[in-house]
Amino acid sequence: MKIGAFGEVMLRLTPPEYLLLEQSNQLRMEFTGTGVNLLSNLSHFGQETALLTMVPDNRLGEAALANLRRLGIAPDFIGQAGDHLGSFFAEIGYGTRPTQVTYQNRRNSAFSIAATKDYLLADFVAQMDLIHICGISLSLTEQTVATALTLAEMAHGAGKKVCFDFNFRPSLNDEPGQKAEMKQRYEAILPYCDLVFGSVRDLVELLHFGEAPADEVAGTALIQDFMKEYGLQWFAGTKRERRDEPGVIGKLYTPEHEIKSAWHKLSVLDRIGAGDAYAAGILLGYGAGWDLQRTCEFATGNAVLAHTIQGDVPLTSRKMVEHYLQHPDVDLLR
Amino acid sequence: MKIGAFGEVMLRLTPPEYLLLEQSNQLRMEFTGTGVNLLSNLSHFGQETALLTMVPDNRLGEAALANLRRLGIAPDFIGQAGDHLGSFFAEIGYGTRPTQVTYQNRRNSAFSIAATKDYLLADFVAQMDLIHICGISLSLTEQTVATALTLAEMAHGAGKKVCFDFNFRPSLNDEPGQKAEMKQRYEAILPYCDLVFGSVRDLVELLHFGEAPADEVAGTALIQDFMKEYGLQWFAGTKRERRDEPGVIGKLYTPEHEIKSAWHKLSVLDRIGAGDAYAAGILLGYGAGWDLQRTCEFATGNAVLAHTIQGDVPLTSRKMVEHYLQHPDVDLLR
Amino acid sequence: MKIGAFGEVMLRLTPPEYLLLEQSNQLRMEFTGTGVNLLSNLSHFGQETALLTMVPDNRLGEAALANLRRLGIAPDFIGQAGDHLGSFFAEIGYGTRPTQVTYQNRRNSAFSIAATKDYLLADFVAQMDLIHICGISLSLTEQTVATALTLAEMAHGAGKKVCFDFNFRPSLNDEPGQKAEMKQRYEAILPYCDLVFGSVRDLVELLHFGEAPADEVAGTALIQDFMKEYGLQWFAGTKRERRDEPGVIGKLYTPEHEIKSAWHKLSVLDRIGAGDAYAAGILLGYGAGWDLQRTCEFATGNAVLAHTIQGDVPLTSRKMVEHYLQHPDVDLLR
Amino acid sequence: MKIGAFGEVMLRLTPPEYLLLEQSNQLRMEFTGTGVNLLSNLSHFGQETALLTMVPDNRLGEAALANLRRLGIAPDFIGQAGDHLGSFFAEIGYGTRPTQVTYQNRRNSAFSIAATKDYLLADFVAQMDLIHICGISLSLTEQTVATALTLAEMAHGAGKKVCFDFNFRPSLNDEPGQKAEMKQRYEAILPYCDLVFGSVRDLVELLHFGEAPADEVAGTALIQDFMKEYGLQWFAGTKRERRDEPGVIGKLYTPEHEIKSAWHKLSVLDRIGAGDAYAAGILLGYGAGWDLQRTCEFATGNAVLAHTIQGDVPLTSRKMVEHYLQHPDVDLLR
Amino acid sequence: MKIGAFGEVMLRLTPPEYLLLEQSNQLRMEFTGTGVNLLSNLSHFGQETALLTMVPDNRLGEAALANLRRLGIAPDFIGQAGDHLGSFFAEIGYGTRPTQVTYQNRRNSAFSIAATKDYLLADFVAQMDLIHICGISLSLTEQTVATALTLAEMAHGAGKKVCFDFNFRPSLNDEPGQKAEMKQRYEAILPYCDLVFGSVRDLVELLHFGEAPADEVAGTALIQDFMKEYGLQWFAGTKRERRDEPGVIGKLYTPEHEIKSAWHKLSVLDRIGAGDAYAAGILLGYGAGWDLQRTCEFATGNAVLAHTIQGDVPLTSRKMVEHYLQHPDVDLLR
Amino acid sequence: MKIGAFGEVMLRLTPPEYLLLEQSNQLRMEFTGTGVNLLSNLSHFGQETALLTMVPDNRLGEAALANLRRLGIAPDFIGQAGDHLGSFFAEIGYGTRPTQVTYQNRRNSAFSIAATKDYLLADFVAQMDLIHICGISLSLTEQTVATALTLAEMAHGAGKKVCFDFNFRPSLNDEPGQKAEMKQRYEAILPYCDLVFGSVRDLVELLHFGEAPADEVAGTALIQDFMKEYGLQWFAGTKRERRDEPGVIGKLYTPEHEIKSAWHKLSVLDRIGAGDAYAAGILLGYGAGWDLQRTCEFATGNAVLAHTIQGDVPLTSRKMVEHYLQHPDVDLLR
Repeated sequence: MKIGAFGEVMLRLTPPEYLLLEQSNQLRMEFTGTGVNLLSNLSHFGQETALLTMVPDNRLGEAALANLRRLGIAPDFIGQAGDHLGSFFAEIGYGTRPTQVTYQNRRNSAFSIAATKDYLLADFVAQMDLIHICGISLSLTEQTVATALTLAEMAHGAGKKVCFDFNFRPSLNDEPGQKAEMKQRYEAILPYCDLVFGSVRDLVELLHFGEAPADEVAGTALIQDFMKEYGLQWFAGTKRERRDEPGVIGKLYTPEHEIKSAWHKLSVLDRIGAGDAYAAGILLGYGAGWDLQRTCEFATGNAVLAHTIQGDVPLTSRKMVEHYLQHPDVDLLR
Repeated sequence: MKIGAFGEVMLRLTPPEYLLLEQSNQLRMEFTGTGVNLLSNLSHFGQETALLTMVPDNRLGEAALANLRRLGIAPDFIGQAGDHLGSFFAEIGYGTRPTQVTYQNRRNSAFSIAATKDYLLADFVAQMDLIHICGISLSLTEQTVATALTLAEMAHGAGKKVCFDFNFRPSLNDEPGQKAEMKQRYEAILPYCDLVFGSVRDLVELLHFGEAPADEVAGTALIQDFMKEYGLQWFAGTKRERRDEPGVIGKLYTPEHEIKSAWHKLSVLDRIGAGDAYAAGILLGYGAGWDLQRTCEFATGNAVLAHTIQGDVPLTSRKMVEHYLQHPDVDLLR
Repeated sequence: MKIGAFGEVMLRLTPPEYLLLEQSNQLRMEFTGTGVNLLSNLSHFGQETALLTMVPDNRLGEAALANLRRLGIAPDFIGQAGDHLGSFFAEIGYGTRPTQVTYQNRRNSAFSIAATKDYLLADFVAQMDLIHICGISLSLTEQTVATALTLAEMAHGAGKKVCFDFNFRPSLNDEPGQKAEMKQRYEAILPYCDLVFGSVRDLVELLHFGEAPADEVAGTALIQDFMKEYGLQWFAGTKRERRDEPGVIGKLYTPEHEIKSAWHKLSVLDRIGAGDAYAAGILLGYGAGWDLQRTCEFATGNAVLAHTIQGDVPLTSRKMVEHYLQHPDVDLLR
Repeated sequence: MKIGAFGEVMLRLTPPEYLLLEQSNQLRMEFTGTGVNLLSNLSHFGQETALLTMVPDNRLGEAALANLRRLGIAPDFIGQAGDHLGSFFAEIGYGTRPTQVTYQNRRNSAFSIAATKDYLLADFVAQMDLIHICGISLSLTEQTVATALTLAEMAHGAGKKVCFDFNFRPSLNDEPGQKAEMKQRYEAILPYCDLVFGSVRDLVELLHFGEAPADEVAGTALIQDFMKEYGLQWFAGTKRERRDEPGVIGKLYTPEHEIKSAWHKLSVLDRIGAGDAYAAGILLGYGAGWDLQRTCEFATGNAVLAHTIQGDVPLTSRKMVEHYLQHPDVDLLR
Repeated sequence: MKIGAFGEVMLRLTPPEYLLLEQSNQLRMEFTGTGVNLLSNLSHFGQETALLTMVPDNRLGEAALANLRRLGIAPDFIGQAGDHLGSFFAEIGYGTRPTQVTYQNRRNSAFSIAATKDYLLADFVAQMDLIHICGISLSLTEQTVATALTLAEMAHGAGKKVCFDFNFRPSLNDEPGQKAEMKQRYEAILPYCDLVFGSVRDLVELLHFGEAPADEVAGTALIQDFMKEYGLQWFAGTKRERRDEPGVIGKLYTPEHEIKSAWHKLSVLDRIGAGDAYAAGILLGYGAGWDLQRTCEFATGNAVLAHTIQGDVPLTSRKMVEHYLQHPDVDLLR
Repeated sequence: MKIGAFGEVMLRLTPPEYLLLEQSNQLRMEFTGTGVNLLSNLSHFGQETALLTMVPDNRLGEAALANLRRLGIAPDFIGQAGDHLGSFFAEIGYGTRPTQVTYQNRRNSAFSIAATKDYLLADFVAQMDLIHICGISLSLTEQTVATALTLAEMAHGAGKKVCFDFNFRPSLNDEPGQKAEMKQRYEAILPYCDLVFGSVRDLVELLHFGEAPADEVAGTALIQDFMKEYGLQWFAGTKRERRDEPGVIGKLYTPEHEIKSAWHKLSVLDRIGAGDAYAAGILLGYGAGWDLQRTCEFATGNAVLAHTIQGDVPLTSRKMVEHYLQHPDVDLLR
């Protein structure tokens, strides 16, 4: 299965060794974003992938392209225009101190100002089997909203699978009236979708789809009602759950089934991007036709490992994930 | 409230990534010291601060000044003389391996050899509302002892608040007869003080003020007797306490009250300077007129975060501390 | 003389060891800008300085403030708003390979979108003796143009000296019609100015003030005509001149005099910011009442040393410049 | 024109900042080799390229692949087998101290032990328009010799252009009798070739093709005789020539013409790989049908810039080379 | 007691900060190997040590020698020949992600191809009191097998103590028939040995010495039978054992006694080389004539600390180990 | 010839990439000093060497010892006492900007406070053939003066060669009256010496031995008079001399001969320690019985290369120096 994604490439700048921005004049530069994370991981799993995006037409854009190639992402549908790449700083937390992400301007990036016509949408849809769209596109600019919706509609119309990730960031939508507009946009894209990554909270708080469920059973019912409403095939997400130690469980729903992975202990080196690792695992199983349980276990194991890898991009291989699932206690391989 | 401090600026040299001195030829350079830590933290809390100290009159002194400015400390009362800055190496421990601090010569530093007359004491006292004096000054040289005592007396005479931190380091006082001399010096400064940071152990072992208390109630009684003896307003300190995991509790005494913070789990990246973070939190509450409980909780939360920050200097903001106290389990902010 | 400047703080990101952006994932972070460079240098010369600018109201803004304090710049007139700081990448050249600067979005920075009313202009003017305005302000946004012009007018009206630096960047003004608009803006600010940094080329190509002069004598005449037209006191700039080796000469004009420095060999480690070093030297001499020749020699020596210092900010001291002018061949000081 | 190359991928390890191996425990890791250098450069010039090689089937091989993708090289014909990658250390020289290259074992690398049948030769030949073969292949193992000869023969037979680089390294051929064997191998491959990179010295010392020429005219005659002997289209190389400063001239021969570039001053940051940059420039001009002079000038300018770039891989773009040729004295671009 | 060891020096290359090879172009270079680890640790304990090995006769070999000297290992019996040093990459794991070791070619290293006659065996045996032989020598090449066996025989014949470490690595012996050959080699060396480091698993799986024991008592019986069979004095090893947290116990056997250390919690920064730390502690106690319990406790404490030190080489001192055993909870020393 | 030296081990701290102390929080740590530089170089030339010195009895002292071993210096005569090591910062210059050395306290270092009786002088003298004494010992403390004089007298009395290096640092002797005292000390040690490193300026300005010579002939006469006065065998030094480019000439005198090396162009990466490289070359030739010209050429070539090596310690090998003398223009070795 050939998997495409539409999403922004972002520049991540991280001080070394848990230092704060004030403490260091050194930064590690990485290129990231939901689409980048997902596709790079799928590429490391052996899938063909392509990213539909726009990077600056300058030395920074060249560096972005070089790094995307390194991550295994084909550059064929990556345009170059403008001079700006959305960027953020990540001050990595330690224990009780949370990781702090600080965004620079995203709404004037090459991606945010690119018009729908700047992309080769038809070719992209034609070449892909499944297209992933990140919900952040619905929060950025009129242009990114229009492109996301157009792409979803075209892909759906062409009989391709469409996968959508809620990825709702309140911080990008904090102005009055914006939440109502976001609700409309999300409702507009969902009819074209087949797979969705999200949570009960997204349904209740963003879409006002039902009441906050009283218990897990009610939550499952809510999700499955939602899936039927929009004709979704799969709905998936992870849930943090502490059992003596911090841990996580993966969940995968069809309209009829609810699958849970085993509980896994979490050791966290860099948690940004771990959700994208879960999504990559789910899409791998989906494309490969694995059964639901195997898919959910693999995706959860992948997300667990992603927490232990620096940077947003989960650079796990199938071999690494499978080894971890079989031998979770081995700490040295040679 | 304008807060001043008298104390040494030290050069801290730390190998990267938990390496030992033998293993690395790279060092991270920082400028630190109890006064530096305290004032920098208070400055990040929005307070006006000034340090009374002496740094070398050369390129190293210039670098020290630049770094103190960066930390938010006003350089107006920092003199430049001599060629030496006290320095230490910190080999950061990991788990069962303790952090190892190795001091270079401190007794010939610009600070240690500066005479009382080299400082603008009268101006300093006039401009400050509260003056913090670090107990290490009483252990270094005749000059630092004289300046500390003179400053305390002048500040007290001018109706300014005086805060004293025991900070007793046996390693600086290991020669015979020295402990008796130290006792005298501490007893000489205490009558001028309003706030003191210390522990029961300091009272019993250094000052021979009463017997080692049998239980916590007796300990509180001892501290409150001590406070009455010297007319102290506040006495404060932290206590490590393991509950399944390592943790800490903050304590704050008036002659009539004993306040304890909630117990907090400790995750330790770099524990040097955490005591100064507690002191900074207490002084913030003191200056702002917070109630005792709020002050103690804030100071303890600040000390907890300080353990997760590289270097001695606790670069927390009020926002960070308050966020941690309200949401201790959030591990990603964006 | 207390010197203020109005200008943008920029984030500079530089790969280490002459590496290209594609070759490294490490960057050195510095905070720079014409105002920053000039004031930091003057501060290292012992002058009181203050910057009028706007930085983001987030962790990046805090880091910027910490670094500006380190550079010796008083933060009193630096506001915090928005989330974006203009940034650029500097790929440092070597020999025949030029240094390549790549700008990210500057027109949406906290500085570029701040309105005139967001600044404490009156206080700023009142406290300063001389105010420096960077010509780039005239190229950015309506807001920066308005603030620059208002500030110049207010300062002039208050009898303060106004210093203006052409700093014309064709790359920021490459759209049709823009050059004419730029001409108008420059012409609008010049009547308020006392000192100007620029070149014959600025006069001819940007302002269409006369024809390109045939020789140096004609160039001097043109500059002095220009000075008389706008009532300028001093006009200054440097000129690169190769004599076997690359070198530079400083020039300083009054309406009646033309001063040239000695020719100096140039060794170039990082040439960005060297022009600001020349300006800082001129302003030091102007404020101190040095004679023209001494001022010009000092400024040129300062510019020469600035080429040998990493980063844009010329961190020279008076001692360093004077030592270089007296002993240009000494290569080791101890 | 689609350009393929057959050659080894090598791991280059370089201590930072001109340090010796004894002085540093830090190394910069790069993946290099004549084929890598050439194709990466051509890829940065906008050409389609593919490398025929073998890297280890382990984490190091994965890292090699990621880095080759970053450099713009398609991985389609790169196999994975074995566990070893040829590697070398580069202690970068400074001024009078030469750069010192130290090779680890190359003869047991994945590339050196791969058999001809391990490659998809037919597909590779079918897809490429021009195939570059590095002479080092003739020095390594029986397998690399066999593959190089087979490939040359197949490509020639299929009407594809074959380009051969002498790249003779005496240090790889220092055993008695080896030089005679090398001569035979070189003579075996030349009949299949169209373009050759080499020098008069290669012809005389390795192939014993004529006597050492007395002057430049005789040298040109020798080269043209050699070209006719083997039916070569182009023969090219560079010549170092000091004119007050170190410099270089590019040379390009057809059987009838001798083209020389302008003399260029050389500034040397890292000279390894500069020869491959010259070759890349020549192949660009060859494929694009440029005239001989333009091709030679471009290739020489490219080689000059390659000396100023860290690492073996010349990451120049057409824009960089053309800018340098037009404005060789500009040292700052923004 | 003067302790010698026969074993390979290896180059270890480690990316910083838990990064994967794909993520970083920086590596930390260290020189390691069982003999190196053991002797360096013993040297830090104050013992005289010497390594019998072969390193390349080039700049890499020089760097290896410099680093071995730094580690306290006498270079007198280290030869220089060939051009290759065995090397491996260590991608350091974090939490659930295991550390991944990737070997480069070891069988063509200077050590692997050195013949028995290339060493000064007689002198070496004459000068040492105890000789340690690493089992990996029995897995590499005919030459290393021959030298190991010859050395063991000579040392035994000269009345010197011989210590052997099973160190059996299935990954070096994965070809069919190889296990039987390995069994023979191990059986050939054991009769010359006095001390052995190994496990029940080595006896059962490699040597087929008895059945897998049903419980710990049976395991002890098996080991003591084995010791009697080969006339061994001491047999030692560690056992990982989880008690809420990961931990370890040290074990030391004589034909008549079974000694166990206290259980110690393990905090793991870099676990490679921790087994060698245990061995070093045992040999220290053996040479110093400590009683069995003290020896076992010291060795276990040493192994625990070795897990908290970067790199393979356990750079603990006696003071550090003894401090840890007495004050396991102290986390700051000054 | 076994060569010993008496001198201080110093800690050198250097910011990376030509950065100033204010600009970086990273430092490269090295252990240096005239004796260290000289012996390390001689050790790399294959000579047996030993250093007589004192380092702190703490972790810093341990790190110093490890680094001295790495440099090839035998630790047998290095004592450990006290807690301080003399240290300095080196801000590396570039072109017109000189390298700036800033010393921390040297007079309280372990070396400076060690008494003559703390050293094993008799053993040291017995084991060495030639003993080098650094003139800085005569400037530090009464203890170092006493030890230097005692050592020189004992060595001379035992028939060993004594080599003395003026190394006069005005900055260490800037108090009134000090120069007269220095003169006495130098005059006291010279009668025991056989070889001296110095300059005409040392003779005239420090010792008032004759007038400043009018020309080179007079200078030679002065030196030879001085040699006869004190019975010296060799007197040596280098002279910087610009010929279009910066360069250097080596000089070596006997009472009867004056030897000059060829002129060598200087490329300067780090010039500290280059004088010690010249001394090491001279001592190598002296010990090996080379003729004067060969000795002088080798020493000069060695000094030239030392300018191109980072740090004070000249890590050249004989092979490197000889290669440079034969092929001064080769810039790549492989």
